[in-house]
Amino acid sequence: MIRVAVIYPDSPGARFDMKYYTSHHMPMVQRLCGPACKSIGADQGVSGGQPGSKPANLAIGYLTFDSVEAFQKSFGPNAGEILGDIPNYTNIPPIVQISEVTL
Amino acid sequence: MIRVAVIYPDSPGARFDMKYYTSHHMPMVQRLCGPACKSIGADQGVSGGQPGSKPANLAIGYLTFDSVEAFQKSFGPNAGEILGDIPNYTNIPPIVQISEVTL
Repeated sequence: MIRVAVIYPDSPGARFDMKYYTSHHMPMVQRLCGPACKSIGADQGVSGGQPGSKPANLAIGYLTFDSVEAFQKSFGPNAGEILGDIPNYTNIPPIVQISEVTL
Repeated sequence: MIRVAVIYPDSPGARFDMKYYTSHHMPMVQRLCGPACKSIGADQGVSGGQPGSKPANLAIGYLTFDSVEAFQKSFGPNAGEILGDIPNYTNIPPIVQISEVTL
């Protein structure tokens, strides 16, 4: 299984609408990708490792697929619509990371 | 629920022993934290969003807890042993992020 982590780093002036992200954007991605998308998830940054410190990232989104190929085949044709929705919830250019789930 | 993401960025000379991490380190963290630790997980970076690109992070580890307090109370007393094991699998100073799981 692979996990696609979509990481939104914090920076001065960064904004992120978690309600829109969890209620609209991520369900839309799952619907467009269809059954190839096995799960969706989202984290809202609270802190770094030390209590009271700032989190490195305002948010992280997660998507899982059986394989990189399954991700590319289902996401690719919908990339325009998905990426076009980003300005509706954030002004942060996300860092996308594709990983093999090892545990 | 909160998720602790432990992010290991890639850099020249960085090394990460995923086998040790998944078979020894993460199970040790779960054992030391006890039932407060609800789940463990690990990702091995494959690529960025574009096929063939380098992933930003060599690895990401995940731990979930009911609350920040549950994490601190169970992790804190074992931090020395847990952090002391890091050089056994990597030379990367990890970035720790505590997040609220929102989806």
